[in-house]
Amino acid sequence: MEKNKEYYMKIALAEAKKAAAEDEVPVGAVVVKEGNIIAKAHNRKEKKGMATRHAEIEALERASKKTGNWWLENCEVFVTLEPCAMCAGAMINCRIGKLYFGARDPKYGCCGSMYNLCEDRRFNHVVPVEGGIMEKECAAILSEYFKRKRK
Amino acid sequence: MEKNKEYYMKIALAEAKKAAAEDEVPVGAVVVKEGNIIAKAHNRKEKKGMATRHAEIEALERASKKTGNWWLENCEVFVTLEPCAMCAGAMINCRIGKLYFGARDPKYGCCGSMYNLCEDRRFNHVVPVEGGIMEKECAAILSEYFKRKRK
Repeated sequence: MEKNKEYYMKIALAEAKKAAAEDEVPVGAVVVKEGNIIAKAHNRKEKKGMATRHAEIEALERASKKTGNWWLENCEVFVTLEPCAMCAGAMINCRIGKLYFGARDPKYGCCGSMYNLCEDRRFNHVVPVEGGIMEKECAAILSEYFKRKRK
Repeated sequence: MEKNKEYYMKIALAEAKKAAAEDEVPVGAVVVKEGNIIAKAHNRKEKKGMATRHAEIEALERASKKTGNWWLENCEVFVTLEPCAMCAGAMINCRIGKLYFGARDPKYGCCGSMYNLCEDRRFNHVVPVEGGIMEKECAAILSEYFKRKRK
C-alpha cells in the first residue's frame, strides 16, 4: 500500500459525513485494491428502508460489481466504525484481505469488542483486523450525530 | 401462526430447488408476517457475483421493500440452512421475531453451531431460534448438490 492508512480512512470519513447529511447514522467505508479505491459508500439504512444497507455491505457490493467477482481477493476495507455481526460476516464471505476500522463499538462491534468473528480461525477465511485508525475523528462524527438527534 | 412450520419450510425448500437449478448452493428462505408469506428468495451469490446475496439477505430485503420498513416486526423467517454470521447479524439488525432453520451448518452456522449470535442477550434484540425443521430434506438437497458438483 503506497498511501498510508489515514489517507483511506479520511475518505471513509468523508463518506460518513455524507450519511450524516442524509440523516443516517454516519458510517462510511471504502474498498481498496492494490492501493486504488475501487468502491466507497455510506450507510443508507433509512433511505433504502432496509437494515441490511450498512456502509460496509454497500461498499462490498459495489466492489464486487466493479471487479465482476464476489471474491474480493487482495482487497482491504476501511470503515469508520467497527463492523457489526452482519458486516463482519460479509467481510469473511467476501474474503477480504484486511479490515481497518476507526471507532470501536462496544455494544455491537464484532471485530474485537463483542466478538472477533473476522479473526476466528475456525472459519474457512480469516480477515486480519486493525482497529483504532483515526479513532477520535471517527467516534466524534457519531457522537455529534447522536447529540443532535437527541435535541 | 395458522399453518404449521413444515408448511413454510416446504416453500423455503422449493426456493432452494430454484437455486440448485441455477447452479447456486441450494438455500431458500421465506419471511412470514402474521401467517402470510411476504417474501421468498433463494441464494443468488453466483448470479449476482456478490458473496452478500445469500437467500436470507435477499428475502429480508424483499420483505422490507414490501412492508416499507427496515424493522421487520412480527416477522418470522424460515430458512433451509442455519444462517452464517452475516445472515444471523442481518436477522438481529432487522429485528426478526423468530428464526426457524432446517439443516445445521457445523462449519459456518452462527445460530447454534459455531456461535449463537441470534440469541445473544447482550445485543439490543434477540431472535429466538428453532433449528431442525425438516432437517433431513434440507440437508439432502445440499448434499446432492455438492455430490453433483464434485463429479
